[in-house]
Amino acid sequence: MTQNIYDNEEFFKGYSQLSRSVLGLDGAPEWPALRALLPDLYGARVLDLGCGFGWFCRWASQNGAASVVGIDVSENMLARGKRETRDSKIAYLRADMENLELQEGSYDLVYSSLAFHYVENLPGLMKEVYKSLKPGGSLVCSVEHPIYTASSGPGWIEHPDGHRAWPVDNYHHEGARKTNWLVEGVVKQHRTIGTYLNLLIGLGFSITRVVEWGPSKEQLDAHPEWEEELHRPMFLLISAGKA
Amino acid sequence: MTQNIYDNEEFFKGYSQLSRSVLGLDGAPEWPALRALLPDLYGARVLDLGCGFGWFCRWASQNGAASVVGIDVSENMLARGKRETRDSKIAYLRADMENLELQEGSYDLVYSSLAFHYVENLPGLMKEVYKSLKPGGSLVCSVEHPIYTASSGPGWIEHPDGHRAWPVDNYHHEGARKTNWLVEGVVKQHRTIGTYLNLLIGLGFSITRVVEWGPSKEQLDAHPEWEEELHRPMFLLISAGKA
Repeated sequence: MTQNIYDNEEFFKGYSQLSRSVLGLDGAPEWPALRALLPDLYGARVLDLGCGFGWFCRWASQNGAASVVGIDVSENMLARGKRETRDSKIAYLRADMENLELQEGSYDLVYSSLAFHYVENLPGLMKEVYKSLKPGGSLVCSVEHPIYTASSGPGWIEHPDGHRAWPVDNYHHEGARKTNWLVEGVVKQHRTIGTYLNLLIGLGFSITRVVEWGPSKEQLDAHPEWEEELHRPMFLLISAGKA
Repeated sequence: MTQNIYDNEEFFKGYSQLSRSVLGLDGAPEWPALRALLPDLYGARVLDLGCGFGWFCRWASQNGAASVVGIDVSENMLARGKRETRDSKIAYLRADMENLELQEGSYDLVYSSLAFHYVENLPGLMKEVYKSLKPGGSLVCSVEHPIYTASSGPGWIEHPDGHRAWPVDNYHHEGARKTNWLVEGVVKQHRTIGTYLNLLIGLGFSITRVVEWGPSKEQLDAHPEWEEELHRPMFLLISAGKA
C-alpha cells in the first residue's frame, strides 16, 4: 500500500500547521486555479480521492453537490474531517487508493488534490476513476509537478550566472523519490507530464485543460514571497472529461 | 517576422553539418517517436510547416501521401530542398509563419518539426492550422521542450550533490529567449506546456498524445552518449486531432 505518512504523528503535526491545513482551501495558493477547472456542482455526485480534512467535501456540498464521498487512507485526517463535518450529504471512507474499487457510472466529478503522486498503481486507480464517472462526468486533479518531483536532490541551487535555479535531473527515471518534507523519507512517485496525460487519454478521457500553477498578479501583490513560484511550477492541474 | 536565422550564412553552415542535416530524418534522435504519432499517410494531403531541407516532405510522399506542401521562411533551406527533390507531388513555398494564411479544410495532416518555438504569433498560426485541416485530420508537431527553453542560462550545471542538473528558472516568464546555438543571439520563444496544450484545446483540437522525448533502450545501446537525455527532456512532441 501507499506509504501512509499522514498517520506518522510527527508528519501529521507538521502538516496540520501548514496554511492549507489551518485555513483550508483558501490557504492553498493553487486553489483558485483548481476551482476554475471545476464543472457546475449543482446536483452533482462527487468523489474526493485523498480528501484529507474534508475541506473540499464541505465546499462541494455547500456549492450545490447532491452528495460527496471523501476517501483517504489516513485515520488521523479522516478523524479530524469527521469531527469538523455536520453534513449528511458527506460520507467519509477509509481506503487505500492502490487497490480501490469504485462503482460504475456513479459520479459527475472525481476530484483529487495533491494525492495521486503518492500512488504507485496510478494506472489501476485511473481505470477505476474512468469507470466510476457517468458519461459527461469529469476528473479534476492536482499533483506535484514533474519538474518539482524529478530531481534526486530537489531544492533551489545556485546558477553560475548568479541567480537561483531549480534542478531537473532524472526526469525520465520514473518511480519513487524519497524526500525530506516535514519528516525524513516521505515517498512520492515521479511521473512525466506525458505519462499523466497519456494514461488519461488511453482510458478514453479527453483532456480539457492543463495548468502548471504559478501565482497570479493579485496573488503576488498579496504574497510577494511567492515570486519564486514563477521560476518553476510546483503543481500540475489537469481537467479531463468522459464522453 | 520571425528571426530568419537559417539565412544567416554562419548559422546555416553550422546547421548543415548537424546529424539531422546530413542524415535526414534518421539523424534526428526524436524521429522514431515523432513518426509513431503519424496517421496513415496513404492518399493524404500533407502540409509541413518549417520544412527545411524537405526531408519529411520526401518521406511523406514516398510513404503514400497524395500531395505535400512544404513551407519555410529560409531561402537557403528551400533552395537545397528543391535541388534534392525530384517529385511532382511535392511543392515548396517560401512564407513567414507569423502571418500565414491557409485554405480551409485542405489537409489531412499538418506536420511541423522543431519550428513552432521560433514563432511569436503561435495563436494566429494554430488558428490557421486548425482551419486548414479537414475534419478527422491531425496535427503532429515537435518543439523544444519548455524545460529546455525556460532558463535564462540554459546548460548543464553542477548540483551540490555532485551530479549534473538542468536549470529551470523563469518558467512562467513566457517569451523570447536569446541563446547561443551555432551562432550568438538565436531567438526562440519559451512557452509552458500548458500554453501549448490549452491553445490547441481552445481551438477545438483533442490532444491524442504528448511525448516528452527521451532515448529508447535501443537508442542508448547505439548511442551511450545520449544518456544525458534521460535527465531532462529536450523535445516535446504533440499529436492532436480535429473532430
